[in-house]
Amino acid sequence: MAPEAEGPARRGERPQELIRRKRDGGELNGEELAALVSGYLSGGVGEGQMAALLMAGLLRGFSTAEAMALTRVLLDSGERLDLSSLDAPTVDKHSTGGVGDATTMLVAPLLAAAGCAVVKLAGRGLGHTGGTLDKLESIPGMRVQLTSEELLAVARKVGCVVAAQSDRLVPADRALYALRDVTATVESVALIASSVMSKKLAAGAQTIVLDVKAGAGAFMATEEDAAGLAELCVTIGRDAGRRCSALVTAMDTPLGHGIGNALEVLEVVELLREAPGEDRLTEVALDLAGTALLSARGADDGDDAVRAGACEELREHWASGAALERLASMVAAQGGDPRVCERPREVLPAAPVRRQVHARSDGVVAAVPAREIGELAAWLGAGRRRRGDDIDPAVGLELAVEVSQPIAVGELLAVVHAGSDSAAEHAAGLLRDLVVVGNEPIQRPPTTLRRIR
Amino acid sequence: MAPEAEGPARRGERPQELIRRKRDGGELNGEELAALVSGYLSGGVGEGQMAALLMAGLLRGFSTAEAMALTRVLLDSGERLDLSSLDAPTVDKHSTGGVGDATTMLVAPLLAAAGCAVVKLAGRGLGHTGGTLDKLESIPGMRVQLTSEELLAVARKVGCVVAAQSDRLVPADRALYALRDVTATVESVALIASSVMSKKLAAGAQTIVLDVKAGAGAFMATEEDAAGLAELCVTIGRDAGRRCSALVTAMDTPLGHGIGNALEVLEVVELLREAPGEDRLTEVALDLAGTALLSARGADDGDDAVRAGACEELREHWASGAALERLASMVAAQGGDPRVCERPREVLPAAPVRRQVHARSDGVVAAVPAREIGELAAWLGAGRRRRGDDIDPAVGLELAVEVSQPIAVGELLAVVHAGSDSAAEHAAGLLRDLVVVGNEPIQRPPTTLRRIR
Repeated sequence: MAPEAEGPARRGERPQELIRRKRDGGELNGEELAALVSGYLSGGVGEGQMAALLMAGLLRGFSTAEAMALTRVLLDSGERLDLSSLDAPTVDKHSTGGVGDATTMLVAPLLAAAGCAVVKLAGRGLGHTGGTLDKLESIPGMRVQLTSEELLAVARKVGCVVAAQSDRLVPADRALYALRDVTATVESVALIASSVMSKKLAAGAQTIVLDVKAGAGAFMATEEDAAGLAELCVTIGRDAGRRCSALVTAMDTPLGHGIGNALEVLEVVELLREAPGEDRLTEVALDLAGTALLSARGADDGDDAVRAGACEELREHWASGAALERLASMVAAQGGDPRVCERPREVLPAAPVRRQVHARSDGVVAAVPAREIGELAAWLGAGRRRRGDDIDPAVGLELAVEVSQPIAVGELLAVVHAGSDSAAEHAAGLLRDLVVVGNEPIQRPPTTLRRIR
Repeated sequence: MAPEAEGPARRGERPQELIRRKRDGGELNGEELAALVSGYLSGGVGEGQMAALLMAGLLRGFSTAEAMALTRVLLDSGERLDLSSLDAPTVDKHSTGGVGDATTMLVAPLLAAAGCAVVKLAGRGLGHTGGTLDKLESIPGMRVQLTSEELLAVARKVGCVVAAQSDRLVPADRALYALRDVTATVESVALIASSVMSKKLAAGAQTIVLDVKAGAGAFMATEEDAAGLAELCVTIGRDAGRRCSALVTAMDTPLGHGIGNALEVLEVVELLREAPGEDRLTEVALDLAGTALLSARGADDGDDAVRAGACEELREHWASGAALERLASMVAAQGGDPRVCERPREVLPAAPVRRQVHARSDGVVAAVPAREIGELAAWLGAGRRRRGDDIDPAVGLELAVEVSQPIAVGELLAVVHAGSDSAAEHAAGLLRDLVVVGNEPIQRPPTTLRRIR
């Protein structure tokens, strides 16, 4: 008998002791977080214990050190993509989710044309936001489920590849996310950052550029909150030895004019077939691609002249048709019909019913609310209410106007692409109310709100 | 197709929506709490969801209305004891847990002698606190697992019965408590109050008196917190139509001199064999019994003279031997050896090793810390670290001194009752350090701190 070891003062650090510490505002170290997460995966830590920890952390806050440690725990739970066999600087891009946000389909081929190797593991749409995988799958034949070997082969040959994440990467993140989703613990900045960054780190690129959306149509409603998330992600990325930067961009109104899967591919192809324009989607895509390009080259993106130079370089790849050529090559390499880049309206699926919506008064377009527009497109079938729901690639909304634009009664506001007359009718009625026409002149909505370096 | 019913604005109140509301500081109504708890019991609401709700409630706080609603949900999850066949006013007593707190074994026979019917469903010891069931079971033959019929028969015949709670009462409370225990969500005033009061309401007594302990040895460390819990319990009890009152009593130092199961029965019997003394255990027992007696009679316990009258009545039942006789009858009716009330030292189990601890200096006893004393007794085998651990009825500590008492070097401080020489040795060493002897005179510790009416 060893009385000291069994004395009343002795305490084991059982899961409930760690939860209690977090509950009372304390901090957990990497080893403790690793024990909890690996215990949760193996069954030694109960679902209730993990959920209580997540809720305590959400309400009390996780520190930066905890977010870094959690990222490592998630990262270490699975395999990593090894991009070391690619000759070019490797780049990844991530968006926190928006409406009419087709930037990946512009950024990836632009960076490929500029000599980078973009390996982007994308997601699916959920709620009012779209997902790049769903958009790409609207192209006939397009495959997004690729093996690691296929991914690397496409990246090596084309310079860009966009595919689904393998189940073998960050399994702990999927397990935690599933629990967060049903326990109202999604909205923790540290949990979001560690989820995003563990996936980005596992995907292997040396350069990571993040597009953190801010506004009523975004996960983060305020610029301040979005900047906080962006800063934490960048801190985690740099701590892991990556070149990491972020833009906070506005998401109060849809970024592009197409909202819906094939409609967004159509918009991207039509934009790339012309010289780069002045529209907001092009602006954000060029800013993200330029930021990534400078970061990949180790250049200072804080210098306006340097940034302008990178943008000019990308505009040349756009205007020359090089970016469109890369997109077509990527589509072909992933089994899709590359003629989508020549005759998109013929190749992409079309909805059976189209209904035009016209303005009922003269004035200025005062608001086109992103969240409601995204929800309406999802209701038409372009998005999912729950994970696993089927979607319809053809349906959605095509906006003919944008905020700040003058409008006259009877002019076209938008086209509804629907699966049935009744759905088109219902959506047209809602859309007419969603597009607010005012009497006062109004500023064009901003694009990039903040740069996190 | 009914577009309105399927429109994007529609939302089901899924569990995560209710958790989110609580997380953000909102309130849930009785129907919503009932749906969550019954869903948890039937499997429709996950363990993680319930744990997240509990943690959100602990950190955000549950309202009084929520605590009342939760009590009803727990109460409605099982059967209730029906005491209507008893002729006498029915009384129940509950303590939040202390050290050396044998009041139930005094209060129940006192109230029985005064004409009440006390039906008390008691608990087991856990951590540093003792449990009445464990104490009673140190009496040879004593049965605490009684059927409802047996309970009523003993109450009718003797006027008091103390037994274990049936599994058929408030099953939801047991399920929730098991989850709270492993998720660090025990310490919510509303959850504690609803757990306590659902059990008291299910046990059926018309009058309920609560002893909420406050101090370093209690669950509630401050008088303020203890009063908050006591007030919430009384509010819930009255809302349910019961006569309910509470005392907040001090638990910085053990209430009685015996700490350990047989040792506490011994102390109770020895106290009841004499006229009521001036010790703190007797004081608290008389105050609780007097409060309950007045409450059962619908009298005003706020009037000092009325209270003194009730206490005087109880002192007479004590001094006459009537209370001791009721205790012996209860023991006999529950299968125990009633000679425990005549020759307790012969009937009760004795530990194989006794070791005296003596003072090493002259002075005044300045502190005998309840929690550490309780933990030491538990370590000797008198209590449990975890539910289900075995206990030893004979072991524990017998204090020979109390705070404020003068002491001279070499005088007896306490006797350790242990299962082995090495355990006695270790405990004696710790105990010597735990009993603090100072130089300054010190006030006798208080008993009743506050009355909640």
